Amino acid sequence: MSRADLLRFFRNAGRLKSEPRRGWMMKLELPYPESVADHSYRVALMAMVYSDERGLDTGKAMRMALLHDVPEAIVGDSMPGERTPSGKRRLESRAMRTIVRDVPPPLAELYLKAWDEYERGTSPEAKLVKQLDKVEMAMQAMEYRERYPRKDVKEFMSTARRTVRDPELLRAIDEIDA
Amino acid sequence: MSRADLLRFFRNAGRLKSEPRRGWMMKLELPYPESVADHSYRVALMAMVYSDERGLDTGKAMRMALLHDVPEAIVGDSMPGERTPSGKRRLESRAMRTIVRDVPPPLAELYLKAWDEYERGTSPEAKLVKQLDKVEMAMQAMEYRERYPRKDVKEFMSTARRTVRDPELLRAIDEIDA
Repeated sequence: MSRADLLRFFRNAGRLKSEPRRGWMMKLELPYPESVADHSYRVALMAMVYSDERGLDTGKAMRMALLHDVPEAIVGDSMPGERTPSGKRRLESRAMRTIVRDVPPPLAELYLKAWDEYERGTSPEAKLVKQLDKVEMAMQAMEYRERYPRKDVKEFMSTARRTVRDPELLRAIDEIDA
Repeated sequence: MSRADLLRFFRNAGRLKSEPRRGWMMKLELPYPESVADHSYRVALMAMVYSDERGLDTGKAMRMALLHDVPEAIVGDSMPGERTPSGKRRLESRAMRTIVRDVPPPLAELYLKAWDEYERGTSPEAKLVKQLDKVEMAMQAMEYRERYPRKDVKEFMSTARRTVRDPELLRAIDEIDA
């Protein structure tokens, strides 16, 4: 494998460290919110724990969590409503295909497959990680509200509730919101 | 499993999002450096790629990468020289044992074992992730130098070179440093 290509893959992914999660900037007016990498880190950790607990394929779940926002290294973070769902999917899918060109072909295929599976929610691991993406957001929303009690995070909580279907994860949101 | 405990585990880990990597603050005087979670995110992604490429146990490598700095949620980030190696190990080991109490016992055991194995470098995955921890730092150092050309990152590069033994990873550092 070409080292230069591989390093470019890591450089690209590294951009997520300085990509702010825009919802916190635009709606809560936080000047230095968490990064997309911060968010992905905790989603991956949650994926690890719930997947280990449920006997799912944890390696697969962690891969999905680590990769799920990688296209944002090229297209940036967006908020619900800024892009149409199909437009967003097309844009991100193209970005993902560009980014994985820098890893060896068998891995590129594996990562693209994991990302597509996540997007389509076509496996238990994909469904889990997709919901954890929102549970993590809900948890972060409440953490910001603790730090800045005047901030109104209702919208984030209701987005999370609209997306999450899993009974245990819904109860987790109840508890986060208590 | 108690939901409240589990959520506390994720809250603790979430502190790594606002824990700055202190080396960048103290030695490069960057006021808003990356977080420990940012760093851990890219280490986990690197662990995924190299472990997939080498046919190692990728699930194990990703677990180690995601967990390796979790004790810092309690004890904070430290720089080489600030704590004696054995003092640091003791402090972090105690913190890790406290933090994993919040996940169900079989997982707590699994995560503690992964963390200890990482610390001791007693498996191919542990050796890999331990070196990637430094390769990631070297990459971030050069990225900061590109953004702030007056910053002197030599010390970070030599720390990385002192730790990394794997020939492929040493060549990667050469390329990062080119």
